[in-house]
Amino acid sequence: MPRYKLVVEYDGTPFTGWQHQTNGLSVQQAVEDAIARFTGAAVRIHCAGRTDSGVHATHQVVHVDLDKDWRPDTVRDATNAHLKPAPVAILSAEAVPETFHARLSAVKRHYVYRILNRRAPPALETNRVWHVAWKLDADAMHEAAQTLIGRHDFTTFRAAECQANSPVRTLDRLDVERIGDEIRIYASARSFLHHQVRSMTGTLERAGAGRWSVEDVRAALDARDRRRCGPMAPSSGLYLIGVDYPDLSE
Amino acid sequence: MPRYKLVVEYDGTPFTGWQHQTNGLSVQQAVEDAIARFTGAAVRIHCAGRTDSGVHATHQVVHVDLDKDWRPDTVRDATNAHLKPAPVAILSAEAVPETFHARLSAVKRHYVYRILNRRAPPALETNRVWHVAWKLDADAMHEAAQTLIGRHDFTTFRAAECQANSPVRTLDRLDVERIGDEIRIYASARSFLHHQVRSMTGTLERAGAGRWSVEDVRAALDARDRRRCGPMAPSSGLYLIGVDYPDLSE
Repeated sequence: MPRYKLVVEYDGTPFTGWQHQTNGLSVQQAVEDAIARFTGAAVRIHCAGRTDSGVHATHQVVHVDLDKDWRPDTVRDATNAHLKPAPVAILSAEAVPETFHARLSAVKRHYVYRILNRRAPPALETNRVWHVAWKLDADAMHEAAQTLIGRHDFTTFRAAECQANSPVRTLDRLDVERIGDEIRIYASARSFLHHQVRSMTGTLERAGAGRWSVEDVRAALDARDRRRCGPMAPSSGLYLIGVDYPDLSE
Repeated sequence: MPRYKLVVEYDGTPFTGWQHQTNGLSVQQAVEDAIARFTGAAVRIHCAGRTDSGVHATHQVVHVDLDKDWRPDTVRDATNAHLKPAPVAILSAEAVPETFHARLSAVKRHYVYRILNRRAPPALETNRVWHVAWKLDADAMHEAAQTLIGRHDFTTFRAAECQANSPVRTLDRLDVERIGDEIRIYASARSFLHHQVRSMTGTLERAGAGRWSVEDVRAALDARDRRRCGPMAPSSGLYLIGVDYPDLSE
């Protein structure tokens, strides 16, 4: 069965998250249904990063095995046609070897977390950002973030329901920058624990608000205790923006 | 009566446009109602640029006269509280002299038009961009745009219902740039005719698609004939992003 790699963009707001749930429509279901409608056969897709309800993607990667050789552009365009009006779009489709696996082959994931940091609530970016009305110091957040870089036990920043075997991860990048009223936190790692980026963001917000020092953030990490994490940031500000593979430039 | 200058952001999608209409809610009505709810008195607001239905603003400027001296921060926060859940936000409020008039005092307006130029439809930017699925040459669009710079009779790019006394305007800036899949058209002038930016954008799209040459665009301008305009671009991609005043930095 020919295998295809798809790059997917979605607005996570109306979905229960990436994975199938009993309480509503998942992004996975929306894409599988759209593919099934044009191929006429049920399919199962596998993604690089399972996002929670409300989390967005500008560059999620999935693979799917189809029953016959379709032109990649047809896979992209026909899936998009059947996805409407769901806020999900297939940005590209390409034929890949059967050895390619969206999750297992991935060597790095990239996320961005967007904070709208101003007094007024968002009018154009509702459900697209976390609105923080008090002033945050992005430089202080960046400094605190650097204590989290490297290989650590991230138990403090891990959801209680996280299913990973180990809480140890290697965080490659955690950069904080301000662009006007917006603060962006860029996070990159081979893989993340469940809720790790939102947990780290909530902790960095405490540093940006002047409530936690760099040492407090370091102590929270060292404690390996979920109760030491800052309040978790909401899902609306989080975006999966890229996945790297060894042989592919994505 | 103390006068206040407000900077307003809004998502134009659900509104009939800036001005009062009989067929739905206008942005003006939403803001006037919110102010009336906290001051207890009906007010009339005046804006720098009347936007059409579906057109957005990151920086619309209005002025309003209130019945008594309110703290500017109170005007901003109380109006925002009463605006919810409408996608309109007051970014700032300041007390200004009675000689300040949002429309008459303005010396320059700035707009941006956003085109999403890729095969796949938008998932995250629905109602925020014009989706053009065929490849556009942003450099060709920029070159064509330069023929429109300066003082001209813009009859070709003017709505039939435009109420301006003269079709002559001085266009100060019309820059086209590509950022990844997005093409942005920045337009600045003291004032614009009705539908001028969307009309110019529709014409530049023809140039970007390779259908019109720079000379075709110049000939369309010189014809002073509405029928020579390219198909008008949709409202969803247009944003009012700034208004300049002589004594204020906005």
